[in-house]
Amino acid sequence: MTSPILDLAKRRRTVRTFSSTPVDLEDVFAALEAACQAPSGANLQPWRFIIITDPQIKMRIRKVCEHVERQFYSTVKGELKQWLLSKGLSWRKPFLEDAPILVPLLSQTKAPYSSESVWLAIGYALLALEELGLGTVTYTPSDAEVVADELNVPNGFSLEAILPIGISADEKPKESRLKLEEVTYVDSWGAHLTR
Amino acid sequence: MTSPILDLAKRRRTVRTFSSTPVDLEDVFAALEAACQAPSGANLQPWRFIIITDPQIKMRIRKVCEHVERQFYSTVKGELKQWLLSKGLSWRKPFLEDAPILVPLLSQTKAPYSSESVWLAIGYALLALEELGLGTVTYTPSDAEVVADELNVPNGFSLEAILPIGISADEKPKESRLKLEEVTYVDSWGAHLTR
Repeated sequence: MTSPILDLAKRRRTVRTFSSTPVDLEDVFAALEAACQAPSGANLQPWRFIIITDPQIKMRIRKVCEHVERQFYSTVKGELKQWLLSKGLSWRKPFLEDAPILVPLLSQTKAPYSSESVWLAIGYALLALEELGLGTVTYTPSDAEVVADELNVPNGFSLEAILPIGISADEKPKESRLKLEEVTYVDSWGAHLTR
Repeated sequence: MTSPILDLAKRRRTVRTFSSTPVDLEDVFAALEAACQAPSGANLQPWRFIIITDPQIKMRIRKVCEHVERQFYSTVKGELKQWLLSKGLSWRKPFLEDAPILVPLLSQTKAPYSSESVWLAIGYALLALEELGLGTVTYTPSDAEVVADELNVPNGFSLEAILPIGISADEKPKESRLKLEEVTYVDSWGAHLTR
């Protein structure tokens, strides 16, 4: 089975460390144009994007995000805390300043399936970025409202994620994935796929 | 700007009418394998798939879905009702029986960003299916819980969507999309992208 999409999906991994090499904005436009082609509830296309290149604005966003992450990390417990520690993740988010471009992604809340539609569109964008040689992470601030306020997002729109975009300087390998057989049943729940 | 992903995204449209031509299961596996490569909250990969080919089970799913849709359509009002009527959509969901394959998509509710992760993965699957010449629609039952019960989905998992998969017999053109400039701001909310 030859599937360039499957190859691209396998190759694509999360990037949290970025080169300072500038990014061609045309590439970012192409990835977001791909996202705009996604299906959405009642075709209302509830996605909105902010393309940020201004270093001052990136610095402000980093500051407000690190503020909410510090609060979050002081309360997180259990399995998630273990996972965060094991991955070397912390409240520090230098990628918000180091990546040449930040793209906050908003959803128009009143649209049916607004969040679902935007996340599906993010799937399109990630594959398009990978194809263009650009890395990103779907960063979700622990307190999206505070960050949305900093971005002057009006009522009626929610911040779903911020994509820092740039050329990868992240040497971590891709995290492993479960096999299809481990997450797939045939005809009814519990009857695992075998191949 | 050459981007095969952008071309694929532009070409891909929602399909609600299916040919009875059988589908190669290997193609469905490839599309779901692409989905399995998506990033997810804490890499917990909260997606679960059920691949359904049994006509009896498809018939039962259609029946329960049409039951919840009849209830929904009797209450829906306003803009959404107008949109549904204008698109010729109704409570009838023949594609749930006509498509050779149905794939209900579940999320493990306790995982962080479980729904978001599954919808991002659906974005991967849609592009992979398009590439393989297969059509689908991200059908979201109006009452996902009732349908999940019919599928014997246990507590802790939610039904996000059902993908009917097959070769398109749908002659409707793709719905139009907003231009990138219409949904994109530069540096701050309200400052529209111009090109």
